[in-house]
Parts: sequence; structure tokens; C-alpha cells
Amino acid sequence: MPAYARGCALLGGGGGGDTAIGRLVCEHILRETGPVRVLRSAELDPDAIVMPCGMIGSPVVPHERIWSGDEGRDLIAGVEAASGRRVAAIMPYEIAGQQGLLPVAWAAATGLPLVDADGMGRAFPEMQQQTMHLAGVSASPLVLTDGRGNTTTIRAIDNLWAEHLARAGASAFGGVCAGALYVMPAAEVARAAIVGSISRALAIGVALRRRMNDPVEQVARAVGGEVLVRGKLVELQREVGRGFVAGWATVVGVGPDRGRALRLELQNELHVVLEDGAVLAAVPDIICVLELESAEPLVNERLSEGSDVAVVTHPAPRVWRTPAGLATVGPAAFGYELPEMPQ
Amino acid sequence: MPAYARGCALLGGGGGGDTAIGRLVCEHILRETGPVRVLRSAELDPDAIVMPCGMIGSPVVPHERIWSGDEGRDLIAGVEAASGRRVAAIMPYEIAGQQGLLPVAWAAATGLPLVDADGMGRAFPEMQQQTMHLAGVSASPLVLTDGRGNTTTIRAIDNLWAEHLARAGASAFGGVCAGALYVMPAAEVARAAIVGSISRALAIGVALRRRMNDPVEQVARAVGGEVLVRGKLVELQREVGRGFVAGWATVVGVGPDRGRALRLELQNELHVVLEDGAVLAAVPDIICVLELESAEPLVNERLSEGSDVAVVTHPAPRVWRTPAGLATVGPAAFGYELPEMPQ
Repeated sequence: MPAYARGCALLGGGGGGDTAIGRLVCEHILRETGPVRVLRSAELDPDAIVMPCGMIGSPVVPHERIWSGDEGRDLIAGVEAASGRRVAAIMPYEIAGQQGLLPVAWAAATGLPLVDADGMGRAFPEMQQQTMHLAGVSASPLVLTDGRGNTTTIRAIDNLWAEHLARAGASAFGGVCAGALYVMPAAEVARAAIVGSISRALAIGVALRRRMNDPVEQVARAVGGEVLVRGKLVELQREVGRGFVAGWATVVGVGPDRGRALRLELQNELHVVLEDGAVLAAVPDIICVLELESAEPLVNERLSEGSDVAVVTHPAPRVWRTPAGLATVGPAAFGYELPEMPQ
Repeated sequence: MPAYARGCALLGGGGGGDTAIGRLVCEHILRETGPVRVLRSAELDPDAIVMPCGMIGSPVVPHERIWSGDEGRDLIAGVEAASGRRVAAIMPYEIAGQQGLLPVAWAAATGLPLVDADGMGRAFPEMQQQTMHLAGVSASPLVLTDGRGNTTTIRAIDNLWAEHLARAGASAFGGVCAGALYVMPAAEVARAAIVGSISRALAIGVALRRRMNDPVEQVARAVGGEVLVRGKLVELQREVGRGFVAGWATVVGVGPDRGRALRLELQNELHVVLEDGAVLAAVPDIICVLELESAEPLVNERLSEGSDVAVVTHPAPRVWRTPAGLATVGPAAFGYELPEMPQ
């Protein structure tokens, strides 16, 4: 579980919520239930219903959010009532951070298997920023629950309306809630989702178990990425609004990187790294801030001025580099006008 | 239709939204469909499902809201999907103002009969301020729609959560939407609803068709109430927030009432009338402002400084004078601390 959580954090690029809370929820439930069965979608009946799920809302609030553990059961009940079909398996819709962990807890609590896939391969703030949306799957019926027994079911005319109504619903639940969406038959998963996300997070975490001399370099290798800078986080600005967090940070280099200054732009996740106006990395690539000494990935809510950090970037799944992918989650989708950058 | 609309406005006490828009929607649809069948709940099979409905949200916005006319159909589809039962009849959940008119249009458009009852007998701002709530009927499953095909279905653990989630849902739909709630079998209606509300609104309107010498006095008699003052509206303060409108107005007397000054408190509807600190009328009694010359009832959104008005009060249904009724809709429920007043 610690290895898997570290993998989820590194795929998160600062987003998806704090894995510490997700780990606590998982470990608490798994102690009672025993392990969860993870399977490929091909092992399910092609018509079997797969329920992607996770939390919906602001990633700041979960620091104070107590998950009852009943969210999975309530989501399943809502999806089954809305679709008239039995849910056969659970899938994280977002592998990043806490989002990769909560569905494990819900699978354990309900005894359902977990499909080794997700809809992002990283973190994104909005519900239409999922490969299932690119593949033409409907986000509706979309079910929200607060884990206290309140459930909202949304049937929207398109996935942008679903995102809008889901965000308002999360807000009514105090800023964050559990959600299920893009419910689909198992036969659709291989085409519509990013296959192998759970294995990938686990493999990254396992590769980092034995610590090498240079943990930051070791992380960069484990994720197939590169180290952009080692330095000190000297400025940090964050604003919460419309259920999102936006801001920026500055990292000044230390050691061999002395004299460099990188600007990091964030909107829930880290989205752009600039140096002297040049783009070093940009969404959809994944950008992580690590604790310099331990190389532990830092979720954005844990960034703080004065801390020693390293910045690592690694590539997102290829689907996000297609024209449709870039239109949905490229820099322009987040309001950045960037010069052309190397692919 | 003009007579019925005038009756709905007089039962509204300034709330429930502008009847001019409701009349336009009704007349447009009724021209195509012919009249709607109005019946008593006892004429239905006891198990037949009755769907109370109306608009949910801020009564200011509807001035700009275009109703598609499809809201009733979408509400019925949502209720039938959530309950697994056919909807047999429609009922206004609130007889006041536009709220008494829209369900007529939806009944016409869907060909369903209209049950002669409502849940308020007047206007109230919140969803738990209904006799069905007092009678222990669940507001859930509560269905919202924007008439564009987007539908939200809420299952709440109690009716206060239903109100909270419905208000947030209306806000996501731009401030106002159509809603169905307190769905119940016909056998429940006589016990849980206010029976005869549609007939009452129509009877009031018909009684006012032939204009007498003193139209204001005529209105007071038609509703079984009394004229509190005739004068000029000299001050008006209104604030919109949390989906509600709050404010106050001052009316100074003219003619025989010269020298008097009444303060009117409003929260969507008019709630309290004070004169020199004494309570002349208070919620749950119904308080209406009329145009002085024509005695036309003015919805709160149409109040304006400098206009010549009369203030009339008339009693609400007895159920609101019971201890449970007063706890839900008495002055204290709206935050007023008033001295004891005559019943």
C-alpha cells in the first residue's frame, strides 16, 4: 500500500489529493476485508458494468474530509437504480493521489473487483478531461454521494453539463463528495480507458522501495522522466475559487542549479514550468515536486515556501498528445498561451 | 385564466413569481391542447401517483426565464425513472403566483389531470415549508430539470437536506428550474396536502370579475381579509442572496390613513407588517400589496418606490396555525422575534 500510494502520488503531478488520507482509509478497511482483487477488463463478461469512481470537488477540502467508507456502497446503489443494471466492478476514474486509493477502499468494502485502468493516467481538474469523454462515453447517469446517505443522480445532455452540475452538487455537499460517472460495459474499457494504470502506479512504487544514492534521480528513472531542477521553493501563491485551486510558485536552483529560477503554474495540479520565458514542461506532461532529500512527492496542498525541493517531469499517456487529447487537456484548455515546445 | 391568475397572485402575498409570465406560458399551451381536467384526489385510484411540482429557485430570475414547456414531461420522466411508477396526475406544490400556473401548463402539455390541492395554500420560500413535510411525506426522490433535457434526481436523508440540495441544484441551472417533490399516492393527498387550492384561487378571481366601487375593499372581502392601509410606498430595500430575496418597505397612509406609517418585511413573500412597533399582520397570514386604484395584486418584484398601494391581509390555511405549522413557517422560522399577536 505505501508503494502503490507513492506511485499514485507521482502520477498525480501534485493533484488528486493527499495520499496520506487515502492510505489511512484503505488500510483501515483492508485490515478487515483482506486484499482486493485487481483484474483486466477482459476477465469480466463483456456486458458486465464497470463503475469508474473517485472524489469530486476541491482537493483542498479533503484534508478535513472524513470518508465514511460507505461512499462506494451508496454510489453502487445509485448507479444500479439509475441504470437498472448490477455493477460488476469498480475502477478509479483518476489514478492520481488520493483518487487512486479511495476506489480500492470502496472495492474492499463492497467485495467487488477493481479494474486495472483509469480515465486520466494522471490528474486533471474537470470531469470531461477523461479518455472516456474522448471515446464518446456518456458521463451520465452521474451519481454523487456524501457517504451520509444523501445521493444526487445527474442526467445531462452532454458531458460539459455533467461536469457543471456535478461541481455544483459537490459544492452543496460541502465542497467535496464521492462520485461515479462514465459507467460502461467491460467491453468498452479497453477502448475508452487507460489500461494498466493501477499496475503502473504499483510498479513505480515498488521500483522505489530500495533507496539508491540519489533518490530524486531514482524517481525520475522510475517514472521515465527527467529532473528539471533541484532548489528551494521561495514563492508560493494559491487561490481557491469555483471549486478549483489556482496559483504559481518559484523554485530557485541550489548546488549545480545555482542561478536558475523556475516558475511553476498550478491549477489543482502543476501545469507548466517556465525558465526565462522558455517552456520546460507543460500539461499534459506530468510535473511533480519532490522533497529534495527523500524524493517523496508533494501534493500541491503540502507545498510551502522555504522547502528544499526537486522538480521532475514525465510524459502522460500518449492519448493526451493526440489532437483531440490536446484540445481537451493541452495548455490552451487551461488558458495558457505557450510557444511551441518539443514533443 | 386571468381570473385564476389573479386568485393565485392574491394567495401569493407577493411571492411565487410573476403571474404575467405564468399566464403567457399557460395560454400558449392551452390554445393548442384545450382545457385541463381538474379533479379531486378521491377521483383517482388510491395507489395512483400524484406529482407535486413547480419552479425552484429565486423568484427574481423568472422575469428572464423562458420556460420551454417541456419541463413537465422531463419531471415526469425523472420521477417515473426514480420511483418505477407511472405518474397519474400533477399538482401544484404551491398555489401562489406563477407557481399556481406552471403546473397547469405542464398538465396541458402532458395530457395529465390536475389535482385540486397544493402544499402551501400561499407562498413560502423553502421546500420543507409544505404540509406534506408536516404530514411526514418524503420530499425525495426530488427531480429538477432545466427544460433543456438536463435532469437531477436527489435522494436525501431528510427534507431539510432535500431543500439544501435542491436549492444548490437550482443555482447550477442558472438560479431557477422546474422541480417535482413529495411524490405520493392519491390516497395520501387528502391527509397531507391543502385540498381545494385551485378552486379557491379560481373562486377568488371570479368574485373579482365584476368591479365594484371600491376595488380594494372588494379584494379584501373576496379573500376573507381586511385592508390594513391605503397609501404610498415611500421606501424599498431588497437584497438577493442564497437564492432568496430579503428586504423591507415603508408605506405611508393617504386619505383617511394620513399620518400612519407601516413597515413591511419581506423574504421572497411579505412576512410582517408593523405600525409603531405593533404587529398588524405576520406570517403565516398572507399579506398582499395591491395597486391602489385597480386593486391588482403586486408581486414583490414589481414593488416600486412612489407607487400608490393598499395593503391587505388574509388568513392562511388553519394547518399553519397548529404548533407544528408555526414551528415550520411562523415568524420565528423566518428570524422574527415578535410580541404575541391576536390569532
